[in-house]
Amino acid sequence: MKHNQYILILNGPNLNLVGSREPGIYGSKPMLDIIDDIMAAFPEKMEYRQSNSEGELIDIIQHAASEGECAGIVLNAGAYTHTSLALADCIAAVDVPVVEVHLSNIFAREEMRRRSLIAPVCVGSISGFGAFSYHLAIRALLNLADEKEA
Amino acid sequence: MKHNQYILILNGPNLNLVGSREPGIYGSKPMLDIIDDIMAAFPEKMEYRQSNSEGELIDIIQHAASEGECAGIVLNAGAYTHTSLALADCIAAVDVPVVEVHLSNIFAREEMRRRSLIAPVCVGSISGFGAFSYHLAIRALLNLADEKEA
Amino acid sequence: MKHNQYILILNGPNLNLVGSREPGIYGSKPMLDIIDDIMAAFPEKMEYRQSNSEGELIDIIQHAASEGECAGIVLNAGAYTHTSLALADCIAAVDVPVVEVHLSNIFAREEMRRRSLIAPVCVGSISGFGAFSYHLAIRALLNLADEKEA
Amino acid sequence: MKHNQYILILNGPNLNLVGSREPGIYGSKPMLDIIDDIMAAFPEKMEYRQSNSEGELIDIIQHAASEGECAGIVLNAGAYTHTSLALADCIAAVDVPVVEVHLSNIFAREEMRRRSLIAPVCVGSISGFGAFSYHLAIRALLNLADEKEA
Amino acid sequence: MKHNQYILILNGPNLNLVGSREPGIYGSKPMLDIIDDIMAAFPEKMEYRQSNSEGELIDIIQHAASEGECAGIVLNAGAYTHTSLALADCIAAVDVPVVEVHLSNIFAREEMRRRSLIAPVCVGSISGFGAFSYHLAIRALLNLADEKEA
Amino acid sequence: MKHNQYILILNGPNLNLVGSREPGIYGSKPMLDIIDDIMAAFPEKMEYRQSNSEGELIDIIQHAASEGECAGIVLNAGAYTHTSLALADCIAAVDVPVVEVHLSNIFAREEMRRRSLIAPVCVGSISGFGAFSYHLAIRALLNLADEKEA
Amino acid sequence: MKHNQYILILNGPNLNLVGSREPGIYGSKPMLDIIDDIMAAFPEKMEYRQSNSEGELIDIIQHAASEGECAGIVLNAGAYTHTSLALADCIAAVDVPVVEVHLSNIFAREEMRRRSLIAPVCVGSISGFGAFSYHLAIRALLNLADEKEA
Amino acid sequence: MKHNQYILILNGPNLNLVGSREPGIYGSKPMLDIIDDIMAAFPEKMEYRQSNSEGELIDIIQHAASEGECAGIVLNAGAYTHTSLALADCIAAVDVPVVEVHLSNIFAREEMRRRSLIAPVCVGSISGFGAFSYHLAIRALLNLADEKEA
Amino acid sequence: MKHNQYILILNGPNLNLVGSREPGIYGSKPMLDIIDDIMAAFPEKMEYRQSNSEGELIDIIQHAASEGECAGIVLNAGAYTHTSLALADCIAAVDVPVVEVHLSNIFAREEMRRRSLIAPVCVGSISGFGAFSYHLAIRALLNLADEKEA
Amino acid sequence: MKHNQYILILNGPNLNLVGSREPGIYGSKPMLDIIDDIMAAFPEKMEYRQSNSEGELIDIIQHAASEGECAGIVLNAGAYTHTSLALADCIAAVDVPVVEVHLSNIFAREEMRRRSLIAPVCVGSISGFGAFSYHLAIRALLNLADEKEA
Amino acid sequence: MKHNQYILILNGPNLNLVGSREPGIYGSKPMLDIIDDIMAAFPEKMEYRQSNSEGELIDIIQHAASEGECAGIVLNAGAYTHTSLALADCIAAVDVPVVEVHLSNIFAREEMRRRSLIAPVCVGSISGFGAFSYHLAIRALLNLADEKEA
Amino acid sequence: MKHNQYILILNGPNLNLVGSREPGIYGSKPMLDIIDDIMAAFPEKMEYRQSNSEGELIDIIQHAASEGECAGIVLNAGAYTHTSLALADCIAAVDVPVVEVHLSNIFAREEMRRRSLIAPVCVGSISGFGAFSYHLAIRALLNLADEKEA
Repeated sequence: MKHNQYILILNGPNLNLVGSREPGIYGSKPMLDIIDDIMAAFPEKMEYRQSNSEGELIDIIQHAASEGECAGIVLNAGAYTHTSLALADCIAAVDVPVVEVHLSNIFAREEMRRRSLIAPVCVGSISGFGAFSYHLAIRALLNLADEKEA
Repeated sequence: MKHNQYILILNGPNLNLVGSREPGIYGSKPMLDIIDDIMAAFPEKMEYRQSNSEGELIDIIQHAASEGECAGIVLNAGAYTHTSLALADCIAAVDVPVVEVHLSNIFAREEMRRRSLIAPVCVGSISGFGAFSYHLAIRALLNLADEKEA
Repeated sequence: MKHNQYILILNGPNLNLVGSREPGIYGSKPMLDIIDDIMAAFPEKMEYRQSNSEGELIDIIQHAASEGECAGIVLNAGAYTHTSLALADCIAAVDVPVVEVHLSNIFAREEMRRRSLIAPVCVGSISGFGAFSYHLAIRALLNLADEKEA
Repeated sequence: MKHNQYILILNGPNLNLVGSREPGIYGSKPMLDIIDDIMAAFPEKMEYRQSNSEGELIDIIQHAASEGECAGIVLNAGAYTHTSLALADCIAAVDVPVVEVHLSNIFAREEMRRRSLIAPVCVGSISGFGAFSYHLAIRALLNLADEKEA
Repeated sequence: MKHNQYILILNGPNLNLVGSREPGIYGSKPMLDIIDDIMAAFPEKMEYRQSNSEGELIDIIQHAASEGECAGIVLNAGAYTHTSLALADCIAAVDVPVVEVHLSNIFAREEMRRRSLIAPVCVGSISGFGAFSYHLAIRALLNLADEKEA
Repeated sequence: MKHNQYILILNGPNLNLVGSREPGIYGSKPMLDIIDDIMAAFPEKMEYRQSNSEGELIDIIQHAASEGECAGIVLNAGAYTHTSLALADCIAAVDVPVVEVHLSNIFAREEMRRRSLIAPVCVGSISGFGAFSYHLAIRALLNLADEKEA
Repeated sequence: MKHNQYILILNGPNLNLVGSREPGIYGSKPMLDIIDDIMAAFPEKMEYRQSNSEGELIDIIQHAASEGECAGIVLNAGAYTHTSLALADCIAAVDVPVVEVHLSNIFAREEMRRRSLIAPVCVGSISGFGAFSYHLAIRALLNLADEKEA
Repeated sequence: MKHNQYILILNGPNLNLVGSREPGIYGSKPMLDIIDDIMAAFPEKMEYRQSNSEGELIDIIQHAASEGECAGIVLNAGAYTHTSLALADCIAAVDVPVVEVHLSNIFAREEMRRRSLIAPVCVGSISGFGAFSYHLAIRALLNLADEKEA
Repeated sequence: MKHNQYILILNGPNLNLVGSREPGIYGSKPMLDIIDDIMAAFPEKMEYRQSNSEGELIDIIQHAASEGECAGIVLNAGAYTHTSLALADCIAAVDVPVVEVHLSNIFAREEMRRRSLIAPVCVGSISGFGAFSYHLAIRALLNLADEKEA
Repeated sequence: MKHNQYILILNGPNLNLVGSREPGIYGSKPMLDIIDDIMAAFPEKMEYRQSNSEGELIDIIQHAASEGECAGIVLNAGAYTHTSLALADCIAAVDVPVVEVHLSNIFAREEMRRRSLIAPVCVGSISGFGAFSYHLAIRALLNLADEKEA
Repeated sequence: MKHNQYILILNGPNLNLVGSREPGIYGSKPMLDIIDDIMAAFPEKMEYRQSNSEGELIDIIQHAASEGECAGIVLNAGAYTHTSLALADCIAAVDVPVVEVHLSNIFAREEMRRRSLIAPVCVGSISGFGAFSYHLAIRALLNLADEKEA
Repeated sequence: MKHNQYILILNGPNLNLVGSREPGIYGSKPMLDIIDDIMAAFPEKMEYRQSNSEGELIDIIQHAASEGECAGIVLNAGAYTHTSLALADCIAAVDVPVVEVHLSNIFAREEMRRRSLIAPVCVGSISGFGAFSYHLAIRALLNLADEKEA
């Protein structure tokens, strides 16, 4: 990854509640602590954003892509994973690689959560490893950047 | 209900248009008048919010739930009832009881409006009684609060 | 409601077992005690009937409607909610308003119990508040009667 | 048709309400008058039964078939047309020819009413001619009896 | 029926083969003999047409309707019953009553033959009585004409 | 099985016709003879009931369960196997073990008969062995009773 | 094959355009040249017909079958393969063996083209070999004729 | 558009009845008057054809395309829009641009009329503007021709 | 169109990216240039808005409709076309005519993009003509305004 | 059963793990102990085989059937019950009666496990009685052999 | 076909039983005799393999393809035709042309057997001609080889 | 991870062909080289197995799990991902954590490849990163082992 670039970690709706929300599924560590730990584990520059709004998530991705300094996006789109075709269109439209992550194994949950609208337009998809899903996604993006530079 | 608590009446997209919008289905009384009448009928504290945005409805519910003074939410999610998994996630994630209401009997309408994504995570569901649906929902929340205190 | 009128509370199949049947879902208070409490809470005249037979439920509704003294029916059709088109036809055919009630939130249960055949022909639908669902339904019918007389 | 034989006209749930029930669909002539007119139009012996109960309709058909004097059955099964596999089994099990009739054109109505479970085991099916549907069904049964005797 | 009027018996694809075609289902009497018998049984004027072409069937119905002398159409649309929306549109567009007939009980056959696209726009539907289905359909049309004149 | 207990053999709609009804599928031995043979093959007390009515079958099961002397039920629900959610609710609600039996192999028949609504709430399911299905079901119930007492 | 018999090669809608139409799928050799080559490759008598009309294809098959000199039909029904139940009825109704052919492998194309309505009533089906599909179909018909004569 | 070229306006089944057919949906102006008005509004050469036959519509399009003077086709395929894969194949096979038009908004009508088989192979689709749909389609074709020449 | 009125051109999510986004589908001309060209082609007043947010699109439409100066809306709802019931409700609720447009032919794309939730409540629908789709939509709205004034 | 014959007990994939695998569903007794107990309970000769391979299960059944000494097969096909059409073909192709067994009640489990591909070709089906399912199946096969010899 | 090359005839599960297995569908000639006859009819080198195992069929195809001497494969995959995506992947992955054959017309059989997973990746498909299907497939492969060499 | 433990990398059907098979999807590096590179990148002990057989894959997993030295399995089940319920049962039955990997993004491929039967019983799922998917999966397993030991 080039030195002026950063990775954007982007969380969708209700992921700000992780820690208090259904700890049986999502764990009891607050999301901001999870993000701090992840950022601390890598020397690369990172930014973190969260929004409950489909439109704002699209704005954030468009903005990051237009600046040219975002090397990749780790996206946990929460429930929009399953309902937002607009988010999928946005990922397809921009030039920045996006990796889909999920804390829980979405395939082990109810029917509606087994279909991801954004997966087809992401580079790849990682789910089920809790906070470590984000860690793996960042490694995947760094590897991608290395390959591109090579 | 404890004296420092209030009930939040929350309306989703296009419900601000009730009164002028398809009066055959929704009646001709403006929504704000409906809300005034309902608030006047109960001595308890109430607040009213409306938004056309899925994300903002989630923000409002999260905010209400985080303060600890909201005893319950009467939610008419309008069309998001049928499309918003994110709203359903939000209701499941917070600790405040939510009662689903609808002016019209949604089951008597077209196929797509017969499936409620939020119903499974609400305490209960009331539909078809016009403005009186809100009235019944408030009674249901007050009864719930009484039982909890008992 | 006129002084010579009464409200019919009508329960369908297996609701006579409430109290012993799956208390995790339906509570442990016997159904007859629930009905007694509800009747005691209102000064209006009420009658209570229960039947396990689809045909008998139709007979009861037709009979009540033909006498002209039934101001409304609170109907918990149990499993027939989901399978009886004949019951739906009956409700559509008579002139008495019918309110659908359920103890549990039927939308939070398995797929087959999320579709109500009778909802489209009822005035409205209330589910998820336990015994209080009946209470709310009676209030809804009394409000309807008041509006008609006004 | 042999002189000791009769034709059974059998009506299912809510057909006793025809005349007052949704006159736009079913007409305003009371069902008993319709039956009287039909019986008057033919010299043959006929019997008329109606029941709102699926089980009782089966009992009636089984009983008629076991006596050996019933030459055929004109059956308007009402809503059970669409939900009663048991009635279909009964028709398939007995030796008496059954003709399905409907006052209205069931194919012009809502989806659920377009599928008849009993049609596959009936001799034939007649719908959409109002009271005259019964008239045609009797002619069909008489013709069938003539052919058998021939 | 007025004296200058006639009834059109209209057969669709492959019905000209009845007599030789799958006699187990359709009987072994040639279709033209069936038609002769039916015409002989009534004093009213009748015409008979058959075509294997969807477009020509529409042309025939449009032409009959435009002249004003056709009192009704007995239509056995054969396989087009299940596939021709254009034929259904034509029946809906003209002013002449159309009765759907089938030799066999289409409901007792394979899935695809149980759905009739034209049934919803016909006056009524008669199936399963072999050649007698046509006989009953003509009676139904004559009765309809009588009622209109009355 | 305790000495004061009995096993209830319960047959649903049209099973009283076995012997004359479609012998190719159900055999030509009358049902009452089948039941006599089965009862003669075991020293334990047994009772036999049959009804064509869904509601009455529920009444019978509820009654048997309320007395405390019924050690188990062998239930052939006939066509209600595939359509009666109310019967399934009843079996789930009572404390008596119920074994589902069928004379024919229901899985080898048409689509609609391959889905059993009551199977999920029965202890187990036996089908395809003709009268011997009842025999096996009784053995299964006796084994269950032995294990419980052990 | 008897000496006075011939094989009919029958092409459906738009197959006259082969050569200019989507050459990537159908090749660039004009259909009439393909037919000439095939006819030249066999000593047996053959006839060739093409029509864009469903009804005319049926007329042609009925006519060929009624003369008694057609030993078999090689049918490429084009798009009617997937939509024409009437054509399927026709093939089932006549006594002449019909072999279904396709230039392209219809199973490798879009969903709607994977279902053939006529395949179930044809002797067999050959697809994917371009012009050679016709060649193979003729061999299959000749083999069939040989076996019949043997 | 080149001076020796013309635009073909092609109407499918039952569109010749517009004016008398269901005026609530299609208006009361006769189709030929509509066509005259449209032709008068443009200086370009136009031709008009109508057919009730799927096969003839294909013949017309193939013929127009083979001559090289047809600059584009405005096609209202009526009911064949929803059932004719052969028409879709034809449009895909020829080199002339085709614009789909509909008088009514087909998306606001019943389920079956919401799926267009020909839309995927047309240049574009215009529906809901009554006679003005044709007007807009011609403008679209002229614009296309201008761009090609530019 | 009255002189104080204007037409609103409203674009949904990701349409601001047209020009750089998937040029194979959407062309390489930037959206703002497209809008400038369209506005320049008409003397009437126009306004242009774009938003990635479902809620904001509803706010914009409600606002435009409440002022009384908006003569019509040209709406390209992007991906919300296929997922937003709330947007459809909004269009149905306001008094301003809305024309649906799409740059590409949505019917030629993947399954999910073939269903438009907003089409049923729009005046009409135009898709597949690139930037010229907007041009045609404006003409349609002007024609509508002329007819209303006439 | 003839004295030189034996019954084959055949277990499919993962059934060798019973005892350690999900004891809540399958019990904690090792499968080999279960088989030993069952064999000890009958004087007849039995053999036991298990395989995780679909192909090997087919080989075993074909081999057993070809020798002529196998009187019947008790088959618990595990997950292949729901996915192996090849196993079903094998059972249909051989002359040995096969009884399907399951330890758990497969109907009470998730959707995919409710459909058995092999049930339609087995003599009968027994599920839900744990190890006793095998016991009942052997009785069923012995009874079948007795009847054949009788 | 080059002189060092051979054609592989590969049969899937249960096809070794042809001759004894359901002779009404598959004929009574043993499969090995069928294969001998076919091999005798051609001068080219051929090999024959059969396996009941999905994995072994894949091994065989991979092995044949890796040697470079196999000019084509005639594959009758039996039931794996309908369930094996792995076999389809294998055919797609190797460089050898594969022709799908079936003895019976799979399209005339039950629903599940009408969908072929391997057809989309085969050169072509031939079904319904009994043993002659293999004969035709070999001709198709020889023709293919000729064209390649030409 | 304990020092006596190893990680099993297990590949399913046709993955041995990677390198030559469809390089556009799977890349041109041979699978054995990919595996060598991965093993070289980690100091931990690893084993590699591949099989085309569903049953053998189950055998391998059962064997690895029974020894107690396998710390985790990286499983690329190839096409069995989508068809093998038996493999899913096996993963659920053993005590070793399994991580699902795919070279390509399976969600971006055809419908049938979007449903993973094994995902619900795996710890997590990683797809789309080519050979790096295996790398990430190993890291996930090592992290899991660390957490367990902590």
